[in-house]
Amino acid sequence: MISFRSDNDAGASPQILQALTDCNSGPSYPYGADPWTKDVEEQLCRIFEREVRVLLVSTGTAANALALAAMTPAWGSVHCHRMAHIYNDECGAPEFFGAGLKLIPSASPGSLIDPAILRSELGVGLGDVHSVQPSAVSITQATEEGQVYTPEQVAAIAKVCGDMKVPLHMDGARFSNALVALGCTPARLTWQSGVDVLSFGATKNGALNAEALIVFNDELWETLPFRRKRAGHLISKMRFIAAQMQAYLKDDHWLANARHANAMARRLSEGLVRVPGVELVVPTVTNILYAKFPQSMIDGLRKRGFDFYDGRWAPGVARLVTSFRTAPDMVDDFVTAAQEISR
Amino acid sequence: MISFRSDNDAGASPQILQALTDCNSGPSYPYGADPWTKDVEEQLCRIFEREVRVLLVSTGTAANALALAAMTPAWGSVHCHRMAHIYNDECGAPEFFGAGLKLIPSASPGSLIDPAILRSELGVGLGDVHSVQPSAVSITQATEEGQVYTPEQVAAIAKVCGDMKVPLHMDGARFSNALVALGCTPARLTWQSGVDVLSFGATKNGALNAEALIVFNDELWETLPFRRKRAGHLISKMRFIAAQMQAYLKDDHWLANARHANAMARRLSEGLVRVPGVELVVPTVTNILYAKFPQSMIDGLRKRGFDFYDGRWAPGVARLVTSFRTAPDMVDDFVTAAQEISR
Amino acid sequence: MISFRSDNDAGASPQILQALTDCNSGPSYPYGADPWTKDVEEQLCRIFEREVRVLLVSTGTAANALALAAMTPAWGSVHCHRMAHIYNDECGAPEFFGAGLKLIPSASPGSLIDPAILRSELGVGLGDVHSVQPSAVSITQATEEGQVYTPEQVAAIAKVCGDMKVPLHMDGARFSNALVALGCTPARLTWQSGVDVLSFGATKNGALNAEALIVFNDELWETLPFRRKRAGHLISKMRFIAAQMQAYLKDDHWLANARHANAMARRLSEGLVRVPGVELVVPTVTNILYAKFPQSMIDGLRKRGFDFYDGRWAPGVARLVTSFRTAPDMVDDFVTAAQEISR
Amino acid sequence: MISFRSDNDAGASPQILQALTDCNSGPSYPYGADPWTKDVEEQLCRIFEREVRVLLVSTGTAANALALAAMTPAWGSVHCHRMAHIYNDECGAPEFFGAGLKLIPSASPGSLIDPAILRSELGVGLGDVHSVQPSAVSITQATEEGQVYTPEQVAAIAKVCGDMKVPLHMDGARFSNALVALGCTPARLTWQSGVDVLSFGATKNGALNAEALIVFNDELWETLPFRRKRAGHLISKMRFIAAQMQAYLKDDHWLANARHANAMARRLSEGLVRVPGVELVVPTVTNILYAKFPQSMIDGLRKRGFDFYDGRWAPGVARLVTSFRTAPDMVDDFVTAAQEISR
Repeated sequence: MISFRSDNDAGASPQILQALTDCNSGPSYPYGADPWTKDVEEQLCRIFEREVRVLLVSTGTAANALALAAMTPAWGSVHCHRMAHIYNDECGAPEFFGAGLKLIPSASPGSLIDPAILRSELGVGLGDVHSVQPSAVSITQATEEGQVYTPEQVAAIAKVCGDMKVPLHMDGARFSNALVALGCTPARLTWQSGVDVLSFGATKNGALNAEALIVFNDELWETLPFRRKRAGHLISKMRFIAAQMQAYLKDDHWLANARHANAMARRLSEGLVRVPGVELVVPTVTNILYAKFPQSMIDGLRKRGFDFYDGRWAPGVARLVTSFRTAPDMVDDFVTAAQEISR
Repeated sequence: MISFRSDNDAGASPQILQALTDCNSGPSYPYGADPWTKDVEEQLCRIFEREVRVLLVSTGTAANALALAAMTPAWGSVHCHRMAHIYNDECGAPEFFGAGLKLIPSASPGSLIDPAILRSELGVGLGDVHSVQPSAVSITQATEEGQVYTPEQVAAIAKVCGDMKVPLHMDGARFSNALVALGCTPARLTWQSGVDVLSFGATKNGALNAEALIVFNDELWETLPFRRKRAGHLISKMRFIAAQMQAYLKDDHWLANARHANAMARRLSEGLVRVPGVELVVPTVTNILYAKFPQSMIDGLRKRGFDFYDGRWAPGVARLVTSFRTAPDMVDDFVTAAQEISR
Repeated sequence: MISFRSDNDAGASPQILQALTDCNSGPSYPYGADPWTKDVEEQLCRIFEREVRVLLVSTGTAANALALAAMTPAWGSVHCHRMAHIYNDECGAPEFFGAGLKLIPSASPGSLIDPAILRSELGVGLGDVHSVQPSAVSITQATEEGQVYTPEQVAAIAKVCGDMKVPLHMDGARFSNALVALGCTPARLTWQSGVDVLSFGATKNGALNAEALIVFNDELWETLPFRRKRAGHLISKMRFIAAQMQAYLKDDHWLANARHANAMARRLSEGLVRVPGVELVVPTVTNILYAKFPQSMIDGLRKRGFDFYDGRWAPGVARLVTSFRTAPDMVDDFVTAAQEISR
Repeated sequence: MISFRSDNDAGASPQILQALTDCNSGPSYPYGADPWTKDVEEQLCRIFEREVRVLLVSTGTAANALALAAMTPAWGSVHCHRMAHIYNDECGAPEFFGAGLKLIPSASPGSLIDPAILRSELGVGLGDVHSVQPSAVSITQATEEGQVYTPEQVAAIAKVCGDMKVPLHMDGARFSNALVALGCTPARLTWQSGVDVLSFGATKNGALNAEALIVFNDELWETLPFRRKRAGHLISKMRFIAAQMQAYLKDDHWLANARHANAMARRLSEGLVRVPGVELVVPTVTNILYAKFPQSMIDGLRKRGFDFYDGRWAPGVARLVTSFRTAPDMVDDFVTAAQEISR
């Protein structure tokens, strides 16, 4: 089986696995009072070119839900894209962590939140005790469709947030893929463009189960350590999360992994557009590719052992995701198979 | 530094680390739809000699809080020991997961919950809409003081629970240590004695971050998968949790680890009782030892590089915890040092 | 000032006020163990032609939020109209009472929920642990726009609910207005058409602060008394809520009040459609009238002492609400004023 | 039947009932934007001799739970007396409103919280992420046993609160009874002695269903209007709550009612201490009397039509509560009956 189902199908980078063994030599203080955790914090400060606060957790859902809960009162609303993971795919985790906060999907057309539409949506019910209070905005980088917000687009949304006095969260489950696609610095893509809190994903890009919540706005930090413990997300043997993140960041391993995944998606995209009957639904920017196939081709590819998702979007639309582990051969085999079927 | 601080100071068993590498060879379905998770479920059915439902998570706090939330309505009370981890050490996780449920510490004297006292406590407010409703009981095996409930004692508590129609949870963060201390079967210590749900710990006994919630009462299962996801505790690359548990259970590795830890505590205990001025506070039954030391001895031991907790209990009382990784030398060095200081 | 702002601007019916004095003669058991509460339950059984369970509360928001919380797990979604009071006007009360449940506004066009659209919406994410689970439907009778669901339309929605195995809630803040507009029996409009729980409003139609949650589906009852107390909605001197409801129901006082309010709206509607420049936005069916006015007429009417809401909908659209207390003179004065301004 | 069961058995003061009729003459803005609400706020500022913030609600449970939720994060603990209404009699309302906060009963012996014991209890777990964080203190004035904190005693507790940086709540369901018993000013008994928020009860002392949350500490105010609405406690026809409170406060009606109730309890107490076999359990200070009776006397009094609670405390202990409506005759009849039975 060759899987283009999801980047969480891939296992872990060898370097990251090795780090688990390397950090296991002796006893160590638990709950994050270990040198690996400290080193990760320092690495992230260097990478983001400023002091940041870091909260390590095991899942992206935990990172997102903790962030939103810290930003939003129970009677607040978080404004997000209608396709956002927090809106559709977390079984209500933000509502749970946020004591019943409300997610409001923006009416923005397309893949990104439109700043002008967001502005009007953030004005609804302001100060009216009968209405939930607009309290936070969350954008996804890269988006569920693999698209990216440029730093300028992030800043335009942050401008609206600033004007409306609500903080901005970035769900960066695929932050690395967006970053290398845009070719800008982590600082530029986040706090320099107005992001207050970043869910910095590592799991999809090579870690086993390590994510960092990175807080640029000190006011949003104070409650987070309590929220994490209370949610059961303070890992006792934290060194095994921190060591993953350490190896992930070391020698730009994370960027190399993301570049590879993106390159494989581009290779796949370039191959598929030449296959008769196949059409891209959106441009291939990061490591996610949406394309429309003849149904017979979908069936045929599956029969040949390729795995991917379809049937969730328009008829015939399939999603193909590449990862740090996708080999050029797999891509080429997929394209070749599609071409053969198309004949 | 030689640490007797906690069994979460120790790292991971080499066998368990190796399992992470072994499970990493190819793509795998995420979120628990992988063969390792399935195998763990089968192993646990064999070990517990019946069909069980298994929910893998990363922390004991998550296991406990999920269990209690599934057992108790928001207006329910969970009755536990005043020293219980759920009462003192989880920053309110059960209250969070349980939508504001109430933990009521039993007035039982000593280290264990007294069934007769529990019975009267479970009767308070029953059916009275002004009162929270007694809804669950949680016992800790082994207890925070390293003591154990015999199967008969578990059954006596379960009898009270049955009479009062509330389910029984066992916090088994150190279940393995209790089990080998008692020399009975896992089945006998749990469902055969009336336990409905078990938090089955592996982390303190050699895993990196793997715990299993084991459900013996099918009625309590249904909501748990949703609760886990909603709490951010559904790990995407679940194979890396399952593989830990698989290696933990394989060839009785978990029992060997626990036997070793208990033996080290016994060795430490036997050494210390011969040191003038040292007195055990409770019998050493599992891998936790409470002893009273002269303050000068505490200071002296610390100065020589031994680490442990004191100052949280009566003056001069220290807690020493052994683990699968505690070597006989460390124990002997500690005893020798104590003896030298005592002269 | 003559107010067409809202039916909660009007005070209380004299009969209902008198009932407060009448019930005040001696001591009485608190918390609903009084004869007035019992009598109200019996009256409601007679009116609805079957055994019903009744929970008296002081606000419609409490009635709605308690109902939805009893119908929906924390990880469940309640499907409602995008204009629903529960979605827009309760500051997240359903999310609060429901431990973070999610309200999903139907994409149905127009004023009513469309059964076919609802059916597809209820199918999203079913059984998928990543998604909230479709768990309840709530319709508003009469709607925020003063429109009504016929019994057949209620039944069509209930059919979808039954097929999808979710219960149906009716927010009847203006149930009486809908009922007399439709000319059917309370039974027909509710449980005989598949409604499981009804928020039965009295406050807008003449009470001071009395609402009843009426439960037709016994399975949804059990938790409600605890939920009410826990939410601070169990009134100690309950007789003063029950006596209101008793007087409201006695001798069809509620129906008379609603008929009057509806008749006043009709009279207003019939007058306004003859005023040049005024157009109804929706048919006037109950006691709410939406019309489009020239802005100068809106300003002129205000200047003459008439009060009503505008500016919340399309430009020039105003909402006029009549009540049991609206006098024909007030209506005629309004129409006359509009005509004078139009000249 | 003559009831000494509870002061919520009594109905309403005629003056308060009359106020409901008086405020009903015309339309009025809902949700508290009415002149009665404004007037109540002004009255309370005068009575408390400073600017105060006022939130009107219908139940004491709502007032308490809203107050505690505004004072305490979800991971915070509220320290209270083990007999407190919030701990025993609100079905977990504080935990619900407070998103799972934890109530910790003080180990203080006797009827009042001991400042020295409180101080040590507030120090437990401070800053430790594994522990809930001490966040608020709540005292009851008068207590469940009818005892009172002098202003000096309140100030001593407030001193501890100030030192530990947590706010102080006073549950004043029977504030008026305590106030007249102590003969001090409302200001002296509250903010001048360090109280931050007061649940100011009116229902037990003559209102139908009206309580005020009075906030002396502005920092605790901001979230309360949203919390009230979200909990379904923002009454639409608020004038009917405000008018009750207005009449309650007017011409010291509240103080007169409380003085009467207290005088009746004293009269009862003075009569009973002369009855052979009857012993007071605590001094009779306000309108609650605890006495130990021979069981045969309890049975005999009940048989003669007197109603009261017993069986909840030590064997033979009964609680007798007087109210603004208790007549001297009722008291004398009770004492006479007891005397007759004692012979």
